[in-house]
Amino acid sequence: MELDFVQWLADRLPPENRPGEGVGDDAVLLPLGGGQLVTAADLLIDGVHFSSQEHSPERIGRKALAVNLSDLAAMASRPTGFLLSLAVPRGGAGGLPPDRLARRLVEGMLPLAEEFGCPLVGGDTNVGPGPLVLAVTVFGEPGPRGSTLRSGARAGDALLVTGELGGSLAGKHLDFTPRVAEALRLVEATDVHAMIDLSDGLSLDLNRLCRASGVGARVEASRLPVSESLVDEPDAIERALSDGEDFELLLAVADTEKDRLLQSPPGGCRLFWIGNATEPTDVVLRRSGGAEEPLQPRGYEHR
Amino acid sequence: MELDFVQWLADRLPPENRPGEGVGDDAVLLPLGGGQLVTAADLLIDGVHFSSQEHSPERIGRKALAVNLSDLAAMASRPTGFLLSLAVPRGGAGGLPPDRLARRLVEGMLPLAEEFGCPLVGGDTNVGPGPLVLAVTVFGEPGPRGSTLRSGARAGDALLVTGELGGSLAGKHLDFTPRVAEALRLVEATDVHAMIDLSDGLSLDLNRLCRASGVGARVEASRLPVSESLVDEPDAIERALSDGEDFELLLAVADTEKDRLLQSPPGGCRLFWIGNATEPTDVVLRRSGGAEEPLQPRGYEHR
Repeated sequence: MELDFVQWLADRLPPENRPGEGVGDDAVLLPLGGGQLVTAADLLIDGVHFSSQEHSPERIGRKALAVNLSDLAAMASRPTGFLLSLAVPRGGAGGLPPDRLARRLVEGMLPLAEEFGCPLVGGDTNVGPGPLVLAVTVFGEPGPRGSTLRSGARAGDALLVTGELGGSLAGKHLDFTPRVAEALRLVEATDVHAMIDLSDGLSLDLNRLCRASGVGARVEASRLPVSESLVDEPDAIERALSDGEDFELLLAVADTEKDRLLQSPPGGCRLFWIGNATEPTDVVLRRSGGAEEPLQPRGYEHR
Repeated sequence: MELDFVQWLADRLPPENRPGEGVGDDAVLLPLGGGQLVTAADLLIDGVHFSSQEHSPERIGRKALAVNLSDLAAMASRPTGFLLSLAVPRGGAGGLPPDRLARRLVEGMLPLAEEFGCPLVGGDTNVGPGPLVLAVTVFGEPGPRGSTLRSGARAGDALLVTGELGGSLAGKHLDFTPRVAEALRLVEATDVHAMIDLSDGLSLDLNRLCRASGVGARVEASRLPVSESLVDEPDAIERALSDGEDFELLLAVADTEKDRLLQSPPGGCRLFWIGNATEPTDVVLRRSGGAEEPLQPRGYEHR
């Protein structure tokens, strides 16, 4: 549903009310007091994005902040603070009464908030019929090179990702590290033309980046950094393309920068080359034998 | 639950992570790019803050934005934009499928967004098990006189409200006008020492303002502007004090300003004097016969 609705919104909003940059991107850029606010909002629902039966409140709280930090990372922006709005079930969740549940959710956020210099500054707490919902809004400021959008990839650009893909449901979707520091180091080290975080799977998010940039892409199946947890799976490539919630970054840089970056990645970064942007706007997957097929956006849509 | 949790949070957050101004107020003030961001978040749940069985999606959407605008009004700040995060039930709500429901919620927001110069700039849409949840984050900038906090009331100050109290559930809680324009005119016309919006009932919100300011208050029961819808109710005064969701402003100004403001209210404002702030920190209600009693915070807590 989300895709149709977002398209409808884009058509429906009055043009003068659409701040140009960032809308429809991972985060929004708003002019503010001579500077620029970078902001993103992500909402998580029990049973959809996590399970209060299976996961501790601390891990759930951490994830709610981490997915928002990942949106800022995709914009190469520095976090500055966040708001937390909660809908807590009257009967609690995960065996905890509402008040203890809320406290433990926050306890899970605070170490990440401290690590990323992103304090909890406000929000709203409500008790309702359930399920547990966490709505986070994160604030940031552009990094030293400004903000990186999805829309700047050029035909010929090398496409890189910052880590393994697929199998995130085994745990990574809760415990991943938002690539904020990596993004800031990457934009210092090279001219990043476009960037997006892989929240819904490479096949879907790559298609988004290509559409925003007006380019196509050819992805080399043999070069995909498939998660170790998938090595014995017969459909490992497909799952690396579509499992979703990898929360790695996908970026486009000039092809001439590729070798230098791969040989000496900016401090702390891991980088994998997966293919190139192309003039034809089709997004294709090249199998190891050389055959090409359309890379359909088959990412994970939460339902 | 909210009060305990917010107190716990205030104690739990590291002091260096507590931006001084605004935290625990109606909205938060954050330094940003040489300017200041004013931001607030409010989350609404079906069956708690509205009923999708009874109320149209347009009215529900409108309310979700209006309660946030009311928070900015309380800070005498100008709205600049908002984010909308939705949790839409898989099966829809109010007889509408998810996609149409989401569109009509937005349709209800857009006229208010245009009226208040507060465009929808982004957000997040999710489908889940239900119920419908709307989480709005609103952005603003301080008005010409800066932002007005809850904490500036002084003993002796006159206490004013901008409209009738009580009986909001008859409809006003969905269709009220956020007092943004009134707040900006008030701070132009006089030095407003403290302000809060009446979201949870006068008795609760007045106690909040007094606690933040370190003062008490004496409220004159006979002067409360009781809503016309309550005139035949035997407990009209009690309901004006505690029904909640009035979304009028309560403000404290120097007592010497009172008569001037009441005689010629700043353009478009309605103002009612309800009592004064006092040195003793008790908050009391003076009945028409002269007897005084503690004014307990008995406002409406959503459950």
